[in-house]
Amino acid sequence: MAKIAVIGAGSWGTALAIVLADNQHSVKLWARRKEQADEINITHTNKRYLPEIELPETIIATDSLGESLEGAETVLLVTPTKAMRDVLPEIASKLTKPVTIVHASKGIEPDTLKRISEVIKEEIPESLRKSIVVLSGPSHAEEVSLRQPTTVTVSSDDQEEAEYVQDLFINQNFRVYTNTDMIGVELGGALKNIIALGAGMSDGLGYGDNAKAALLTRGLAEIARLGTYMGANPLTFAGLSGIGDLVVTCTSVHSRNWRAGNMLGKGQKLDEVLENMGMVVEGVRTTKAAHQLAKQQDVEMPITNVLYDVLFNEKNPKQAVDELMRRGKTDEVEDLTSLFAGRFVLDSSETSESQ
Amino acid sequence: MAKIAVIGAGSWGTALAIVLADNQHSVKLWARRKEQADEINITHTNKRYLPEIELPETIIATDSLGESLEGAETVLLVTPTKAMRDVLPEIASKLTKPVTIVHASKGIEPDTLKRISEVIKEEIPESLRKSIVVLSGPSHAEEVSLRQPTTVTVSSDDQEEAEYVQDLFINQNFRVYTNTDMIGVELGGALKNIIALGAGMSDGLGYGDNAKAALLTRGLAEIARLGTYMGANPLTFAGLSGIGDLVVTCTSVHSRNWRAGNMLGKGQKLDEVLENMGMVVEGVRTTKAAHQLAKQQDVEMPITNVLYDVLFNEKNPKQAVDELMRRGKTDEVEDLTSLFAGRFVLDSSETSESQ
Repeated sequence: MAKIAVIGAGSWGTALAIVLADNQHSVKLWARRKEQADEINITHTNKRYLPEIELPETIIATDSLGESLEGAETVLLVTPTKAMRDVLPEIASKLTKPVTIVHASKGIEPDTLKRISEVIKEEIPESLRKSIVVLSGPSHAEEVSLRQPTTVTVSSDDQEEAEYVQDLFINQNFRVYTNTDMIGVELGGALKNIIALGAGMSDGLGYGDNAKAALLTRGLAEIARLGTYMGANPLTFAGLSGIGDLVVTCTSVHSRNWRAGNMLGKGQKLDEVLENMGMVVEGVRTTKAAHQLAKQQDVEMPITNVLYDVLFNEKNPKQAVDELMRRGKTDEVEDLTSLFAGRFVLDSSETSESQ
Repeated sequence: MAKIAVIGAGSWGTALAIVLADNQHSVKLWARRKEQADEINITHTNKRYLPEIELPETIIATDSLGESLEGAETVLLVTPTKAMRDVLPEIASKLTKPVTIVHASKGIEPDTLKRISEVIKEEIPESLRKSIVVLSGPSHAEEVSLRQPTTVTVSSDDQEEAEYVQDLFINQNFRVYTNTDMIGVELGGALKNIIALGAGMSDGLGYGDNAKAALLTRGLAEIARLGTYMGANPLTFAGLSGIGDLVVTCTSVHSRNWRAGNMLGKGQKLDEVLENMGMVVEGVRTTKAAHQLAKQQDVEMPITNVLYDVLFNEKNPKQAVDELMRRGKTDEVEDLTSLFAGRFVLDSSETSESQ
């Protein structure tokens, strides 16, 4: 039985707390609001984020960060990426011994253009952390909390620690795979939210599954292109935290980013959408960050760029999607080869003859 | 204006006939049944296959193969793969000059284990064909017939002919890309139907989007693994005829293969399912063929093998999906690297340092 502090009691933090409680670990769940902590402790529900779910009684909630961290061996961070910079120094100030830090947040910080693990490195002194591990993959919180079969990936620069975290979470319904490519796992999880906004927008405009599949295919190529430039292994984008998470986020009404895109497609302005959602839509900030990154790295990211213009420059959504569907390039292989940014070379000696 | 014979008046053949008619080509559509040909000519509908659609009046239907082929410069084959061996010699006997042969059928022939273009090569003498071109991609017929934005890929061993076919079909809503990897384009279109059966089965069992995303991710890996062994370019599976078609087929209720899998998941037997469908379910035969191929080539295809047992050996669907979700391997990169079957090597000199 491990002692784990779960920082953030939104839908994903609560769902992961359920997995850990099911695995008989001691779970302290930090909620920002006292009423929410009380609700979890007294009625064992978290109705705002997981309306249908009865929580295990062993999950103890608190609105005191110090209390949640007391004695913790592992700290699981599930706060919105926007809150990360603020909450990390507070956490560091309460820690008394080095801990394993797991994060399950999906975003890139605008302006600094840093991944979450990089932000953690800057804000938690090395003496207070054993390792940083990311957990990502195709995992709607609602389904995880219902113990529906789910697969995720954990990744760390320290493989032993990744396996330690794998053991904490794995059970019959929640399957955990390791992947040594931390950059790829973090970027896949973050960047897919951009494509989900686009997919929602296409659906909101009344376009069909064919259009969405095209966006998703191109979207994966552009995620992998930027990711590879940033040092990721392109194969990671073919895995659970790449295509797996992309598919689930783009095709499900559970997805906040899809829903936000859908409202944009139906003609709502960004401000209205964010107000109507009432929850964080990571894809909006991530679009901004990826747009900056693409410029900085000189990487072609047509979907990201067009979405940036819809979100921040009042571009018309219909015009945006139509442009994406009709853009010029007509040789598919040329488009896909650029995906690997020269990091893979075809070993032609092994190429079979084409008939 | 080109003269085109469209062989097969199911939903996909009819939708492609609409695209060609919209592009002002002369289209003769062959239907097996005289009543169907009459319906198309008189009421300009094809209610059994595209219930909501009014067809362009310029589409001329006939139940005479000879009549449909008269004067044709291009022959578009959209028959079920099962009918291909029978219809091709008949077509050959009616041709009087070499034609461009396009096929848009998605399957692999069981026992011979041939792709459709290979079957065409065997059955149409070389003197009667200019080239063989495949058209594939994420394209529900219903949406194409409604002029919803759609992207597809054409591929041929003869690039000029691929571009000729691209020009025949391309318009504002129907975007056509070329890809020189014919093996990959044909295999992607055929093999995704297996995964769609599995995805439908998972949904039919009541599992959620997380489980489906896992199946789809693993499914793509196993499609690419077999395809690469058979000489395809692995990059093709990251494109429209790979992941694009896979996503659209696995996540849409339009998909017959998904629907058939769904009924299997809900407890129906294969015979009942096929009877209830009333249309060809290509994935069933393709599962058989791929199961044979995997054995022959010694390629690991867990989803295909488990589905084969459900379809033909009365394996319990729930047990099948549970096994897939819980199988042993837990290192994701190892699993994905095998995907490329040694045909790609990582150029480590260019690998960025992981932080």
